[in-house]
Amino acid sequence: MNQEYIKPNAWSIIEEGWSPGLVKSSESLFSIGNGAMGQRANFEEQYSGETFQGSYVAGVYYPDKTRVGWWKNGYPEYFAKVLNAPNFIGIDVFVDGEPLDLNQVDKVTDYRRELNMKEGWYERTFVAHFSDDKAIKVIARRFLSLEIDELGVIDYQVSVVKGDVKIEFQPYLDAGITNEDSNWDDAFWEIEELISEDHQGFIRSRTNKTNFHVCTFMQSELVQNGEHLQYANHLEQNTKIIRHTASIELQERETVTLRKYAGYCSSLNHQQYELFDAARKVLTHATLAGYDVLLQGQIEQWAQIWAMADITIDGDLKAQQGIRFNIFQLNQTYLGKDARLNIGPKGFTGEKYGGSTYWDTEAYCIPFYMATKDQQVARNLLKYRYEQLDKAIENAEKLGFSNGAALYPMVTMNGEESHNEWEITFEEIHRNGAMVFAIYNYVRYTGDFSYVPEMGLEVMIAIARFWHQRATFSQKANKYMILGVTGPNEYENNVNNNWYTNYLAKWCINQALENLDKVKDGYDDDYKRIIGLTHLSGSETASWREVADQMYEPIDVELGIYLQQDGFLDKEIIPVQELEGKHRPINQKWSWDRILRSCYIKQADVLQGFYFFEDHFSRQELEKHFDFYEPLTVHESSLSPCVHSIQAAKLDRMDQAYEFYLRTSRLDLDDYNKEVEEGCHITSMAGTWMSIVEGFGGLKIVDDKPSFETKLPEQWKGFSFKLNFRNQILHVQVDKSGTQVTSHGTEPVDVIINGEEITLQPQMVNA
Amino acid sequence: MNQEYIKPNAWSIIEEGWSPGLVKSSESLFSIGNGAMGQRANFEEQYSGETFQGSYVAGVYYPDKTRVGWWKNGYPEYFAKVLNAPNFIGIDVFVDGEPLDLNQVDKVTDYRRELNMKEGWYERTFVAHFSDDKAIKVIARRFLSLEIDELGVIDYQVSVVKGDVKIEFQPYLDAGITNEDSNWDDAFWEIEELISEDHQGFIRSRTNKTNFHVCTFMQSELVQNGEHLQYANHLEQNTKIIRHTASIELQERETVTLRKYAGYCSSLNHQQYELFDAARKVLTHATLAGYDVLLQGQIEQWAQIWAMADITIDGDLKAQQGIRFNIFQLNQTYLGKDARLNIGPKGFTGEKYGGSTYWDTEAYCIPFYMATKDQQVARNLLKYRYEQLDKAIENAEKLGFSNGAALYPMVTMNGEESHNEWEITFEEIHRNGAMVFAIYNYVRYTGDFSYVPEMGLEVMIAIARFWHQRATFSQKANKYMILGVTGPNEYENNVNNNWYTNYLAKWCINQALENLDKVKDGYDDDYKRIIGLTHLSGSETASWREVADQMYEPIDVELGIYLQQDGFLDKEIIPVQELEGKHRPINQKWSWDRILRSCYIKQADVLQGFYFFEDHFSRQELEKHFDFYEPLTVHESSLSPCVHSIQAAKLDRMDQAYEFYLRTSRLDLDDYNKEVEEGCHITSMAGTWMSIVEGFGGLKIVDDKPSFETKLPEQWKGFSFKLNFRNQILHVQVDKSGTQVTSHGTEPVDVIINGEEITLQPQMVNA
Repeated sequence: MNQEYIKPNAWSIIEEGWSPGLVKSSESLFSIGNGAMGQRANFEEQYSGETFQGSYVAGVYYPDKTRVGWWKNGYPEYFAKVLNAPNFIGIDVFVDGEPLDLNQVDKVTDYRRELNMKEGWYERTFVAHFSDDKAIKVIARRFLSLEIDELGVIDYQVSVVKGDVKIEFQPYLDAGITNEDSNWDDAFWEIEELISEDHQGFIRSRTNKTNFHVCTFMQSELVQNGEHLQYANHLEQNTKIIRHTASIELQERETVTLRKYAGYCSSLNHQQYELFDAARKVLTHATLAGYDVLLQGQIEQWAQIWAMADITIDGDLKAQQGIRFNIFQLNQTYLGKDARLNIGPKGFTGEKYGGSTYWDTEAYCIPFYMATKDQQVARNLLKYRYEQLDKAIENAEKLGFSNGAALYPMVTMNGEESHNEWEITFEEIHRNGAMVFAIYNYVRYTGDFSYVPEMGLEVMIAIARFWHQRATFSQKANKYMILGVTGPNEYENNVNNNWYTNYLAKWCINQALENLDKVKDGYDDDYKRIIGLTHLSGSETASWREVADQMYEPIDVELGIYLQQDGFLDKEIIPVQELEGKHRPINQKWSWDRILRSCYIKQADVLQGFYFFEDHFSRQELEKHFDFYEPLTVHESSLSPCVHSIQAAKLDRMDQAYEFYLRTSRLDLDDYNKEVEEGCHITSMAGTWMSIVEGFGGLKIVDDKPSFETKLPEQWKGFSFKLNFRNQILHVQVDKSGTQVTSHGTEPVDVIINGEEITLQPQMVNA
Repeated sequence: MNQEYIKPNAWSIIEEGWSPGLVKSSESLFSIGNGAMGQRANFEEQYSGETFQGSYVAGVYYPDKTRVGWWKNGYPEYFAKVLNAPNFIGIDVFVDGEPLDLNQVDKVTDYRRELNMKEGWYERTFVAHFSDDKAIKVIARRFLSLEIDELGVIDYQVSVVKGDVKIEFQPYLDAGITNEDSNWDDAFWEIEELISEDHQGFIRSRTNKTNFHVCTFMQSELVQNGEHLQYANHLEQNTKIIRHTASIELQERETVTLRKYAGYCSSLNHQQYELFDAARKVLTHATLAGYDVLLQGQIEQWAQIWAMADITIDGDLKAQQGIRFNIFQLNQTYLGKDARLNIGPKGFTGEKYGGSTYWDTEAYCIPFYMATKDQQVARNLLKYRYEQLDKAIENAEKLGFSNGAALYPMVTMNGEESHNEWEITFEEIHRNGAMVFAIYNYVRYTGDFSYVPEMGLEVMIAIARFWHQRATFSQKANKYMILGVTGPNEYENNVNNNWYTNYLAKWCINQALENLDKVKDGYDDDYKRIIGLTHLSGSETASWREVADQMYEPIDVELGIYLQQDGFLDKEIIPVQELEGKHRPINQKWSWDRILRSCYIKQADVLQGFYFFEDHFSRQELEKHFDFYEPLTVHESSLSPCVHSIQAAKLDRMDQAYEFYLRTSRLDLDDYNKEVEEGCHITSMAGTWMSIVEGFGGLKIVDDKPSFETKLPEQWKGFSFKLNFRNQILHVQVDKSGTQVTSHGTEPVDVIINGEEITLQPQMVNA
């Protein structure tokens, strides 16, 4: 753990006391978002200290030319970057002409930040001392509306603590922003048009190359004692910035509030020529409703989210805070309303990694969205990949595949591959398997098979074709092998027969064959359409089957384990525990070759297979593999602890399960990886949810029924979570006395609770 | 073969006829150099067509910041770039005010280039037609002096073919040059001072970061009918260019010549403040001597080189031209006078690849320099690496090695690693073995053991330490393995137990141990100094020995072959012959992952070991391995054909040997790899020499004696070469009637000719 300054609290993230060194960390942790846009917790007023500015509009990106000096064939030409967007939160404040800048004032006291997760707002409070005789107190609260997702609202309240002062507010829009993550320092944005009139300002900018048009807008008002003040608004603008100025004289103890309604309208949702009008409508709507009504709406929207998604942990405040932070951030990032969007690795909290979509979505995020929202949301996530199937086929063609074989990208915004390390882009192909697993998982959980004939089967066929072509027949072994891959453990590259990849490839082919049969039997029109489209023949499927049937599995018979890859046992096997601290984390301390030839594992690899396919293996097998691989795992991926927590819980190793749980749930709050300044690890937060629901809750689907094998860590008095299972709401409560499952649905549900099968009637508890 | 426009000629490279599309190819092929500087065959006068400008000063480089977007630990921060230097060849010509530009004039006829390799000069002739009534003929000859290696001389003769014209010459120096190979478009040079007076001009520029100072200089004169003309010289200069102007009126059939003496003085050889003086001295010396005397000197210098280095091939003009072109270019690139210099992959013919030193020097170039020059030259090449031992130790430290272990860089200018692909920089570690092989080879050939106690042993110890630490003990195999490497075949990355690397590692350790014993026995002072310096203990050498003794060798018992690496036989083994043409060259047609999992070999790998250690293996073993690996080899490295030519000759497969020979010797002239525009493949040219001397000549050293097993390709009537063997000059002549070896030395020499041992007396022939 790298930091411990966040105050434990069940519903809020709280920082107390002024520490300039923590500004960038808090800018990440107190980020807000509403699925359509988001922003780091940057200060409204100017700040000359260390800061990392970030405002983001979902779906708006820039294809930055890549910086690879050497060139191997098949690489993408660009990397789709998450874009820092024009800043609308800015409110410069002058006190008797002197700028309010926490890095410059005499003293800052009573500094406090709160991210209220229950109600969905963020507030910063402080007293700024300009001299012994002059001080003001600020309470700045803001939120990004869930109701009107193009709108942000800022309530910036200034009270005079000492002295009589003249306060000048300068709310502004700034489109002169840049990306920290830029390869060539190209301009990502062009500013097209600025309009500043009365109390409103609008800037229309356009992204280069991708031509997204975004109108950033604002309107301000001054409020005192509940009254809107009339004031002379001085308008200023240059080529990049619109700045308004409102002044007021205040006596000691008087208070005034600058309200700013602001936001983005983008060409994703409006015709380009309608952007200004759309923005004006948002402002009209917002100002007519007013701050209090909008805030109330925000609180209600979040209450609805929490009603379904909340997890309670009794008797462990930090664990409680951790899980709610994860659930909150996931909902801030993606709400599932728009099938064009996805779950970026940093959400709206930073730029790093670029792209919005990784295999994290299919492997880690879908279960969360499937269980805590309407199943349409998970379907939208699947549909996103279906829509990008053509690009995945193109991507495979660049690597020499043919006949409609698809390779989904490692990283993408629009379906095209963005990543460019050959050992990842070209070789971390197991990602293709996660696409099929997500379809399987969706059907298993929701019972909605209709997705398969409508869209999923086409994806499965294209992926089966990929695996069929990617396998190499080894005459020596008389088996099909998959040579030259990188598994989920990215600390081994270009290995032969990564067990997880081979197993998944075989399974994908079998899934495609099974689902082909199901569609043939029950969906004749779809079947004909798909066969017509794919030209799939019996001889082709027969050749797939041969590859699946003859797929090689690396095994060490003596140890009785599946080998991570053919050469794994040639390595020196020394448990992580015996590695001196100075070598950790190895990805910062060791050169790449040393990492590669070491036995150390970045994240679950063989165990990822045991996680996906838990019912294929016995508890004894899981135990053996967990005991072999976990001690070699350095967990240097944010995706690592959750899978291990779930498996430790299954094996009744509750201390270890709890330790992994804390690590995943408070990864960012406690900054385990020393990088929270760059943003939060959004996709792994879904893994945290899984480690409660699938780990301690022991959820799995058995013959169309949810089954719970509950385990209570001894540090907890109890915990509870809810599931939307096929439109019935199940509330699972676990404490020392046992497990209660209540159905809040309208239909009876069959559930299995710790081995016992029960039919729950609506509103009935099992106990 | 990609082109065939060079006229076959025994001593010259000749192009005839004006083809703008060939300008860049010819700029490479007609390049000139004198070991200290060199230049592409760019036109003196302006040219608005496609051209690749290049002038180079040996040892002057720029550390260009690398462009790797991702970052893994241990990477170098820069890549030492070969620098395009200020241009001194420029002579703009105006005919009645109209610029002479072969891309703009009405017509070009009688165009011809000749690179006279025998005499060491380059000449371009053409007639430029400005209109039906106006044409001039130009004969422009230039050379870079071997006698005064800071001097270049240009004789630019203009005759009026039609019309009476005013000719204006504008000789200039241009320091406003850039590199094509630049990562960030940084300025590589700063211009510090320009001096232009009378008929002389000087520009002092400085390289950024490395602070090399280079004075580029010129002096011009007009000559007509053997008389130096007095003329008004108009001086012009801006911040980057010095330009002089001399005009003369000519009548039809009259001729005038602009002579330009020019060159570089650099801070490698002079104090910075003395650069202008040094340049003035060169000019004084040159103008006093005059063009004819300087040219005569050049011819004599080259005659001396050829007297020792020439190879004749009788009855095959293209083969003859090819070998002389290779020998000529090697001598243009490196003459062995300066131990700070080395043999860059493109010499002075292009910028590509950067760095001046690769393992090519040790593995391919040393034999050529050892046999055709004084042995001090080869010693200088070894000493170059000794001088860089500290940097090689630092390089190894960056990768986690300790205790004085050294890893020589993949690419360097000054000993620091410049390369940055992890699979090469961190893993192509066999390069370390070539350093030891070169020492062994030098001692074996020259009999000069003194290099070992003086310098070589320290290098061997540091390299033995590297291999000792780099090996991994596999408990499973009870052997030491070398995991995660790239062998000479760069089409496999991060493989385990590359046979060549393992074999070489073991051999290096044994070499270090043997040489330690020899030095201990005969060089007590050196031994004590080295032990004091390295703190080498008996227990350390014992642990080396254990690694060497227990080194694992991948073998397939069934096939009876050493495996290129552990997983080689899991690949689909399909001979290159069965690969359709559209897939070749695979490095341009296939994505990297596809190349890696294919069985195709870029250049000799197992066979490189058979080449280095030919006496360790029987002819049957060579045959078996050649038959297994060669058919899988795509020869997409310029270093590939020569080794295979030598081995084919040993196996009496003369057609194949001849085919490989032609490919290596005319690689650039016929542009086999479709890239000669970027420059010539200098280091592989030494391989061409080896394929004659060691292939067809069958040279090896047996018990301190040169042994020749000669083979004559049936396309040839005969061939001959010379060797400096331990200061005795041996002249080997092979024809259909047999092999003659003549000694031109002063001492008797024992030689073995086709199995028969003979003592040759001075001036004696064996026959």
